[in-house]
Amino acid sequence: MKKLPVVAITMGDPSGVGPEVCLKAVRVSRVRNVCLPLIVGDLKVLKLHARKMGLPGRLVSISPEKMNERAEKLAGAAAVLDLGNVAARDRVFGKIRAGLGRAAAGYIEEAVRQIQGGQVVGLATGPIQKEALQAGGYPFPGHTEMLAHLLKGGPPVMMLAHGRIRIAHISTHCSLREALRLVKRRRIVYAGRLLAEMLEVLDGRPPRIAVAGLNPHAGENGLFGSEEIREIAPAVKDLRREGISAEGPESPDTVFAKLRAGYFDGAVAMFHDQGHIAGKMVAFRFGGEDGNNVRGVNVTLGLPIIRTSVEHGTGFEIAGRGVADASSMVDAVVLAARIARRRMQGTRADE
Amino acid sequence: MKKLPVVAITMGDPSGVGPEVCLKAVRVSRVRNVCLPLIVGDLKVLKLHARKMGLPGRLVSISPEKMNERAEKLAGAAAVLDLGNVAARDRVFGKIRAGLGRAAAGYIEEAVRQIQGGQVVGLATGPIQKEALQAGGYPFPGHTEMLAHLLKGGPPVMMLAHGRIRIAHISTHCSLREALRLVKRRRIVYAGRLLAEMLEVLDGRPPRIAVAGLNPHAGENGLFGSEEIREIAPAVKDLRREGISAEGPESPDTVFAKLRAGYFDGAVAMFHDQGHIAGKMVAFRFGGEDGNNVRGVNVTLGLPIIRTSVEHGTGFEIAGRGVADASSMVDAVVLAARIARRRMQGTRADE
Repeated sequence: MKKLPVVAITMGDPSGVGPEVCLKAVRVSRVRNVCLPLIVGDLKVLKLHARKMGLPGRLVSISPEKMNERAEKLAGAAAVLDLGNVAARDRVFGKIRAGLGRAAAGYIEEAVRQIQGGQVVGLATGPIQKEALQAGGYPFPGHTEMLAHLLKGGPPVMMLAHGRIRIAHISTHCSLREALRLVKRRRIVYAGRLLAEMLEVLDGRPPRIAVAGLNPHAGENGLFGSEEIREIAPAVKDLRREGISAEGPESPDTVFAKLRAGYFDGAVAMFHDQGHIAGKMVAFRFGGEDGNNVRGVNVTLGLPIIRTSVEHGTGFEIAGRGVADASSMVDAVVLAARIARRRMQGTRADE
Repeated sequence: MKKLPVVAITMGDPSGVGPEVCLKAVRVSRVRNVCLPLIVGDLKVLKLHARKMGLPGRLVSISPEKMNERAEKLAGAAAVLDLGNVAARDRVFGKIRAGLGRAAAGYIEEAVRQIQGGQVVGLATGPIQKEALQAGGYPFPGHTEMLAHLLKGGPPVMMLAHGRIRIAHISTHCSLREALRLVKRRRIVYAGRLLAEMLEVLDGRPPRIAVAGLNPHAGENGLFGSEEIREIAPAVKDLRREGISAEGPESPDTVFAKLRAGYFDGAVAMFHDQGHIAGKMVAFRFGGEDGNNVRGVNVTLGLPIIRTSVEHGTGFEIAGRGVADASSMVDAVVLAARIARRRMQGTRADE
């Protein structure tokens, strides 16, 4: 049997949809064809969710270094690195609890240790609850900041990925007012460089990237705002000077439709929603025949480890009901495995 | 023969794709089934474009009051209110000329006169070139501002319409920095009210509207920005107090995907690109088998006349080549006719 890389999946907040989407995702053949998925979480919590959802299949407690030798035994089972972080009274659905925030943080810390130890190649994270995380003593606005702190990498750059849509953001979770202050040549170049590197890993060839403008119609030559002239156009020049095929500033209201059409391989967005509105129009389908279909992956660039994440939150309102869509988690695990494989291939020919 | 309303179509900048999309649109049966389309422009310019494009069909110079009596004679022909504004030397493609800006402004002024005189029920505008317009002595950033000035209505609110996507914007052509200053309770209520009125005209029933937040995740209870708390939530309350079914502030990166899915009948966007990125991801298809497919209509709310517009610009780079997609113009004319018909029906039962 071919040796497959182990990808860690942190279970996320135990009372949200995280455990459910983990359990669903690890059963999917698209995932199992490219890696050995290992849920880092609590076996008892996962069993509770599985029972509630009526999900069949064994759950096996295992440590990552044993995954490959026991791969055949694991076929059809969900492998769990059981941390036992959750007390019996906290095995609940849809609740904000300090203990659960602390538990979720513990999964992330352990997954990072396993990656640093070399047993695991990358990490796909389930959704956490920010208030619970902070109540649990972890003063971070989210995963990304916590990982940057743990790993002393960074600053991290959030890339949203779904099919042809690959968008790096020069800022994320701050007010739009603050985001305007962060539209700086240096940040744009940094994000553009990381994006180009990741796209070259994924596609096996130097990418063409677009840099979005900030203002309507990219400012119309300074008529509506000067950021394009002062910061964005110089950043595009800098990127080109580094040998990156970059275009822009592009009009924000058409650049992502052009990206989807294949004019570019990726784009740099000037703030969170500029990229996220475009990405989610493509990746999210609400209220279809089978309920919501939520796709798309969040990839953290600039960290020393491979890290992907689901594009949705904890979904407290539907937790424990078995209706959560695991597509985004499937995409996240597959993409983490793909990045790992491509990096291992290094400069060798494309598969 | 049933009497049909006359809809004026201004030709736009004579050297852009406006004449071409007008000529293509008036031949479409979806247009001719609902109105008598009348191009307000220059016969000689239109003939030049028709010849360049190899477009068959007669062009007939006519005044609007004769349209209905001569409807049978006009079948298969393009009706033109010929203003003769363009000098022979200016019958060119893809050029910025003061004379052409002045000519384009003249079409708009004449169309407004015809509407005010009662011969025409509404206006669909072709794309104009802002620099040319201003060089021609019309100091407006665009159609909308010029019309608001001419008609002393307003302030106008831009609604983007394409299928289920109907989005009113509380600001349009200003820098994002300036747009932040315009996120005010009063403006949001004004735009929400006009949107709800228009949707009721179009759909024949009171709509459910969403109001987008401004900041990522709609600010997460003040964590990233306070506009949601200070301005947007109070505006939603005001709208409800007026009897409008309004929800929000909704997270900007999912509200438009929900709108497309039918959760709402329309949405209020907090700035130009918030709505336009979402709308164009749905309405614009670049580089398909038949080239670009550009749909979607711009509707100006708050004016005393019915006014729609194409969602694209003058396309100087492709003017005169015959490849411009007229879908947006077709949609614009049909929607103007539809609004006129619904308003005439008044409170009568839906068709």
